[in-house]
Amino acid sequence: MAYSVLPLTRLIEQFEKLPGVGRKGAQRLAFHVLGLPKQKAVDFANAILEAHEKIKKCSVCQNLTDAELCPVCMDGGRDRGVICVVEDPRDVIAFERTREYKGVYHVLHGLISPMEGIGPEQLTIKELIARLGDGEVKEVIMATNPTVEGEATAMYLARLIKPMDIKVTRLAYGIPVGGNLEYADEVTLFRALEGRSEL
Amino acid sequence: MAYSVLPLTRLIEQFEKLPGVGRKGAQRLAFHVLGLPKQKAVDFANAILEAHEKIKKCSVCQNLTDAELCPVCMDGGRDRGVICVVEDPRDVIAFERTREYKGVYHVLHGLISPMEGIGPEQLTIKELIARLGDGEVKEVIMATNPTVEGEATAMYLARLIKPMDIKVTRLAYGIPVGGNLEYADEVTLFRALEGRSEL
Repeated sequence: MAYSVLPLTRLIEQFEKLPGVGRKGAQRLAFHVLGLPKQKAVDFANAILEAHEKIKKCSVCQNLTDAELCPVCMDGGRDRGVICVVEDPRDVIAFERTREYKGVYHVLHGLISPMEGIGPEQLTIKELIARLGDGEVKEVIMATNPTVEGEATAMYLARLIKPMDIKVTRLAYGIPVGGNLEYADEVTLFRALEGRSEL
Repeated sequence: MAYSVLPLTRLIEQFEKLPGVGRKGAQRLAFHVLGLPKQKAVDFANAILEAHEKIKKCSVCQNLTDAELCPVCMDGGRDRGVICVVEDPRDVIAFERTREYKGVYHVLHGLISPMEGIGPEQLTIKELIARLGDGEVKEVIMATNPTVEGEATAMYLARLIKPMDIKVTRLAYGIPVGGNLEYADEVTLFRALEGRSEL
């Protein structure tokens, strides 16, 4: 546009950078935020800053948390003998929604992907192996997405962990192949947990 | 979810309040923002705060601006004899994209809508009438959306302005009836400007 109001243009540009938001959508969001009462806009901005300041990785499972340990690792009622390995903190949220899993998690923060130049050393595999050393862990469940990278990462980890005499299992294919774990419904996820098989 | 990390939940909730963003979408946006480098997140938050602090209404046309006058009203090359009346600042952006309109604007910031309890006194109609008093204005173009509220507002304004001996015109129906002005393409908008008819 020929004339632009700089602070508004900047706000639109910020929204445009978000995934799945186009130019029109960014404009709509920017005008919406601009139309908010002052305090609501301040709350929004603070939520962004606060999340960035306070959220870090749990020192045990690498999930996101605002304390030293994440809520799952802090919970004494969880079974520390079973570790569910996931790609992403969103996958933990999905599993917690089933209300059936009583073990703990390990968040890899990515998958091995030679195409994108992501090797094992960029994931939290070192931290996972360290957790397996104390003999407390009986089973590691591979719950990476059923994609090429997810399978490859699961196979890689299985080969690392099996020599340590720990059972390694994989989610059953109740989850639709090629789909995205984050969008699976609770029942499907629970069936997948139940039918897990040894790798 | 059973366990929640408060700053993250708060951020997701903020995104969920945006128009057209659901729970999954909000989660995706929140994790995206969380994954940004610190400085980018600060930039995002500041863009929201800055827009809210600096953007106000142009004292002449009521469009959004970060100065006393908006860029259009400040431009000496614009024809102050023609005023294009629009509902929304986004409509100004749409007209400016045609690069054909040389007059100025007046932004109503809404439409008369008894259903939503919006009467003429909540719009910037008082300010529009004040602008018409100096005899400089030759024509007022009604460019409200071709909806029931848009038509009603245009008719209401036409009845107010005509006795002042000023030509009142309406955009031609080049714009699709029932559609939204904001999404019209440049050519359609230009045709609509060209074919405008007297009310």
